[in-house]
This record gives sequence, C-alpha cells and structure tokens, in this order.
Amino acid sequence: MKKGYLLTPGPTPLPPQVCEAMARPIIHHRTPQFQNILKEASDGLKFVFQTSNNVFTFASSGTGAMEAAVANLLSAGDRALTIQGGKFGERWTELCQAYGVNTEILDVEWGKAVEPKEIQKKLKANPKIKAVFATLCETSTGVTNDIKAIGEIVKESEAVLVVDAISGLGAIPLATDAWYCDVVVSGSQKGLMLPPGLGFISVSPKAFKLIETSRSPRYYFDLRKAKKALDKTDTPFTPAITLIIALNEALKMMRQDGLENIFLRHKKMADATRQAVKALGLELFAPDAASDVVTAVKVPANIDGEKLVKIMRDTYGVTIAGGQDELKGKVFRIAHMGFIEEFDIIVCISCLEKVLAQMGYKFKMGSGVAAAEEVFLR
Amino acid sequence: MKKGYLLTPGPTPLPPQVCEAMARPIIHHRTPQFQNILKEASDGLKFVFQTSNNVFTFASSGTGAMEAAVANLLSAGDRALTIQGGKFGERWTELCQAYGVNTEILDVEWGKAVEPKEIQKKLKANPKIKAVFATLCETSTGVTNDIKAIGEIVKESEAVLVVDAISGLGAIPLATDAWYCDVVVSGSQKGLMLPPGLGFISVSPKAFKLIETSRSPRYYFDLRKAKKALDKTDTPFTPAITLIIALNEALKMMRQDGLENIFLRHKKMADATRQAVKALGLELFAPDAASDVVTAVKVPANIDGEKLVKIMRDTYGVTIAGGQDELKGKVFRIAHMGFIEEFDIIVCISCLEKVLAQMGYKFKMGSGVAAAEEVFLR
Repeated sequence: MKKGYLLTPGPTPLPPQVCEAMARPIIHHRTPQFQNILKEASDGLKFVFQTSNNVFTFASSGTGAMEAAVANLLSAGDRALTIQGGKFGERWTELCQAYGVNTEILDVEWGKAVEPKEIQKKLKANPKIKAVFATLCETSTGVTNDIKAIGEIVKESEAVLVVDAISGLGAIPLATDAWYCDVVVSGSQKGLMLPPGLGFISVSPKAFKLIETSRSPRYYFDLRKAKKALDKTDTPFTPAITLIIALNEALKMMRQDGLENIFLRHKKMADATRQAVKALGLELFAPDAASDVVTAVKVPANIDGEKLVKIMRDTYGVTIAGGQDELKGKVFRIAHMGFIEEFDIIVCISCLEKVLAQMGYKFKMGSGVAAAEEVFLR
Repeated sequence: MKKGYLLTPGPTPLPPQVCEAMARPIIHHRTPQFQNILKEASDGLKFVFQTSNNVFTFASSGTGAMEAAVANLLSAGDRALTIQGGKFGERWTELCQAYGVNTEILDVEWGKAVEPKEIQKKLKANPKIKAVFATLCETSTGVTNDIKAIGEIVKESEAVLVVDAISGLGAIPLATDAWYCDVVVSGSQKGLMLPPGLGFISVSPKAFKLIETSRSPRYYFDLRKAKKALDKTDTPFTPAITLIIALNEALKMMRQDGLENIFLRHKKMADATRQAVKALGLELFAPDAASDVVTAVKVPANIDGEKLVKIMRDTYGVTIAGGQDELKGKVFRIAHMGFIEEFDIIVCISCLEKVLAQMGYKFKMGSGVAAAEEVFLR
C-alpha cells in the first residue's frame, strides 16, 4: 500500500472531476453535443488567457503549439529574436533554426530573468526582427520573466511578441491582451490541471496578418485551417475529444474559483515552499526571479541530488523533479501548480526532510514544515 | 433516459478497461513506472502493426502522423505519387503539396479500389518518384485497397511505400513487414479502441535512410528526435500519458484476442451489415471493394440522408456517419470497427429500419435485422 503525491511541473495532479470526465463513454466530435463543449471550452480558454482573441486547441503537447507559432509566423530567412535562459527558451531557438529563421539570441544567465531593456536594444539594432520569442515561466530554472514589461517594449516595434506560457498560464498572472502578447502558447498538463495532450495558442489580429504571409510548410498546425474550422465551432482534424471534455470541466472549476483567487493560492504555495526550504538551510536557485509555479532548490554539498529525488519517489511516493540539462543533479524542483493545496506542500516538505535526514544532511527536524505552516496560518 | 450507441468510423466505442485506465490518478512520464508502460505499449504496437520496425507515438491526431511521414521523407522539389480515391487519399496530396513536393496524382473513382498495375505504370514512367502514398481503408467511401499487391510493386522500385492505415489497423489484415510497407501511419480512435489523440508511425530501415536526407523543416514530428528518444524508452516531448496508459490496456485486450480472431470478428460484423442493408433494398456504395471496417450505403431516392443520420442520433441515440465532401447527403456510413460486437449491429440496423419506416421508405420491417441474425447464426 503506497499513496502517490505528484509535485512535478507537468503533469500536475488531476482533480476528481477531470478524472471522472475522461472515464465517460466517448461521443462523436461532429455532433451538436460536442460542438457545445468545444464552444464552452474555447470561451473558457479566452477567460484564462485573458484575451478576446481566438484560442486554438491542438491535439499535441505544448511544443506542438510552439511549433505552430514559428511555422505560421515566419518563413526561412526571416529575422527573429529568441530569449534564452533555460531549456525552454532554447527550444524557441531550436524551433526557429529548424525553420531556417535568421535567429538573434538574447542569452540570459540560467536562474535570472531577462532584463527587458536588453530586448529594446536588440530591437533597435535590428529593426527587421519580425517576432520576439519569450518565456513566461522557465520551468527548468523556476524563473518568471516580466512579460508585462516586455510587452510594453515589443509593442513599440513592428515585431509580434510570442510567449511560451506553457508553465504558468492559469496559475500566475498573464494578461494576454492588456500586456500586448500577440501569440500565447500553452499546454494542458500544468496550470490547467489536465493530462498532457492538448496544446493551445492565442493569436492577435497583428499576428494573423503575419500568418497570411508565411511561406513555411505546414498542415496539421496550420492556423489558417484552425481559424476556418473554429469559426464554425469545429476543428480541422479529429480533436482529442476526451481531453477537451476534461478541459471543459477544469475550466468550470477555474471560473468558479476566479483567476485572482487562483493566483493568490499559487503565490501562497510558492511562499510556503520557499520559506520551508530556506528554513532547512537550503538555497533557492533563482532567488531574484523565483516563480510561483515551480521552486528550484540548489542541492546541498555532499548530497546526491538525483538520488534524493529517486528516494522520495520510489521509496515514499512523493514525486518532485530533478534538474534538466546543465542543472542535472545540481537542483531539485518542487512544483506547486494546478490542483495543489497546502497539505500537498506539507507532505512534500515532510518527505524532503525525511530523506535529507536519511542522507546525512544536518538540520532541525520539522523546521521546514513549521515554516510552511507559518505561511499558511497567516 | 437515453442510451448512446456509437457506430462511427472514429471515434469508436471505448472498452470499460480503457475508460477506467483514463480515470486513474496521473503519473509522471520520466519515471520507471511510465517507462515500463511505454515499452510495453511500443512492443504491443509492433504486434498490431506486424512489424519488427520501431513504431513511434505522437500526441496528435492521425493527420499529425501523416504529416510526419511527408515532412521526414521528402523535401521541396522531390517527386512523389499519391493515390486518391476519397477524402483521405486527397489528404496525402494536400500534405505533399504543402511541403512543395512535386506530386503525381493517381486519381481513382470514389468507391473503387486502386488498380495496382496503374501504380506500376506510374513508377515506370517516373523513376524519380521517391515515395508512394496509399490508403488502406478509405473511410470516406468504405473502400479497402489491396496494399499487399501495391507493396509487391513498390518494392521493385526505389520508392518507399507509405500507407495510411488510420482506419483499418488492428481491424483488418495489414502485414507491415511481409507486405513491404516502409511507413505505416495510424491513429488511436479506430481499431485500437481509444479516444483520439495519439498518432502512430512505423518506419523501415529503407525509409530511415530517406529521413536522414530530407531538408523539410520539422521539429515536433521529427522522427530523428523520436528515434533517439525511443532508443532510451523515452519521448522527445511530454507524451499524452493517460492515452498511452489506455493504449496499453487496449493492446493487452488485443493480444489476448489475437489478430486473427479480431480480423474474423470485423469480417463478420461487416458481412452482417452488408447483408442487412441489402435485405432492406439498399445499395452499397462500394460493392466491389467494400471494407470490413466501415460500410457506405447509398441513400435511397426521396430520402434525406442527412436527416436520416440526424434522427437516428438525436432522437434514438444511435450515431452513424453521413457522407463527407462530394458524398454529403448521398451516403451514410455504418462503422463496425474496434469494440463492436453483434448486438451493436442489431441495434444499429433496428434503428435504421425504424427511421427509414418513419421517413416513408418502403421495405419489410425486420428484414434487415433478420439478415444480420442469419450471418451471426452461421
């Protein structure tokens, strides 16, 4: 008998309503019944994206929706600016390069947020830049970027702003329209509390103009096809029916909570996690730009970070994430995103204490949990 | 109180084991637990595809996997042959053209199977053709093509054979390796008894050589990335975890039944359906090449075909499919694919009789059901 606890930055735990919805007998997608669901879900997505633009849903992971952005906006030889500061910022660069885009890279130290003024400099130096690719929350480092400030800068240029909000959407503030985000990309398995398998993309009228001119080959992710279909409350290809039905359930829950309450809850979970690990004498990886959806913590000296994550998961059933790429073994990451509430954090910190103690790390037993409790008591 | 019956060519009904699997709490994909499932599912796919080649799984609809075939095999300016005889054959052409491929089209009358010798002629006339794109079962017309004969022909050329087996795989015979199919594409919501959301593609060594040379832009559907990941029992991007877990359950059922029994069952369902509609005085749309997964029936004179489908669905809960594109209103399609057994067919024919009678069509009440029962009694 072992219970499982999931505190990873995607997938995140599923609410029972979502699980139940996926177990229902399947319905056909070209029916009024499914059309009503698709309509409701698309409206719900606009609410979460805080946009009046269309939000399109693909059967794909978030990366598929990222590719949709690149392939639809740009052609080979076009110029773009990508902002890198972790694994997912680098994905924008890889995608642009895969499409032959002339890619200017703004390299940011891992663990730091981008300085918006650096983007301004790049745009002034390269007025031919057609698109700027940014990341709301860089999951690999636990950094949140200041998309609002970036939006203010990019809107003064000819370029469109494309934001990877796969991690963060529906968990931390992102006002697509008010912040001048032309294209926002997301995925289902993070703040939206669903399994992976859906990619989302919102598109502004400014971005749609660019889409009409792109010569990049595309079919499945063609946003012109997606728009034509959505205008008739349809999808160009068979949609991931069960996941969209589940999406609708999750969106209903989110509407009931309200975005402000959801953002506050995430902030509280993040605060508690940060206070807890600090009370244990551990160091945050990104203290200056720590995100409210995932906390990256430096592995202390003489502790095997990968082993720590493995023991928590395999021995005690508490799954957190290790470091990726250059941070492998150097950080562990506790996600507090989606369907996570205070006792999930307490369980996670308690398990972390147990395993750290077993691995010989010196600290006062219970001090992490106590610090989290203090935050929750406020 | 209304029960629902689904006899559409995708999605097909879900077995309870599949529904249950999707309602489980989600697990993380980068864990030994999920790796075991992915390994088992990938092996199960090889069994269903009847191949020793790798079968890759994308979070996408079947069309995504079709695009993967085109984007990975061909570059702009390459020459390809597409075989058209319905909506899905045309999709190959559209995909090739989207990638700038010099596309030779072999046009087949809707409702007929392609004559394999015509392919031979085309290949002889155009030795530069790098890939031939065929369709196992053309869902829009209910036609099955002779892939075995096509494989024998294409293998004598330099070209690779790419088969859309989205409809048909795991329901009617398709021996990927024995029939020299270099690339076979499929989807989850048909013979595999799952919701839509997974695309599959098997790739032969001959096809992989071509993949290494393609210059088409690709990222999400890049089979080089997919191969590198699968070699480590991983996926390049977050997989559709719940659907893959459900896939594993469906594959276990299929292994238990055995492919031969599954094919026989589909043949019986198809026979019963064909005999039933003929007994009602209706005409098959594709009498010479009728598929065992979906039966297209001509709408009789003076009957509104779209209304027939609508009444069956909205009044009586029995969902069949209407005609697509040029066949809209001219045929209706009864699918007998996946988790369908004899009493599903009885229900469908009984409902068809009821609605036909209400619409003023003249026939002997019960004659369709009786004809189906005769087939099942054998």
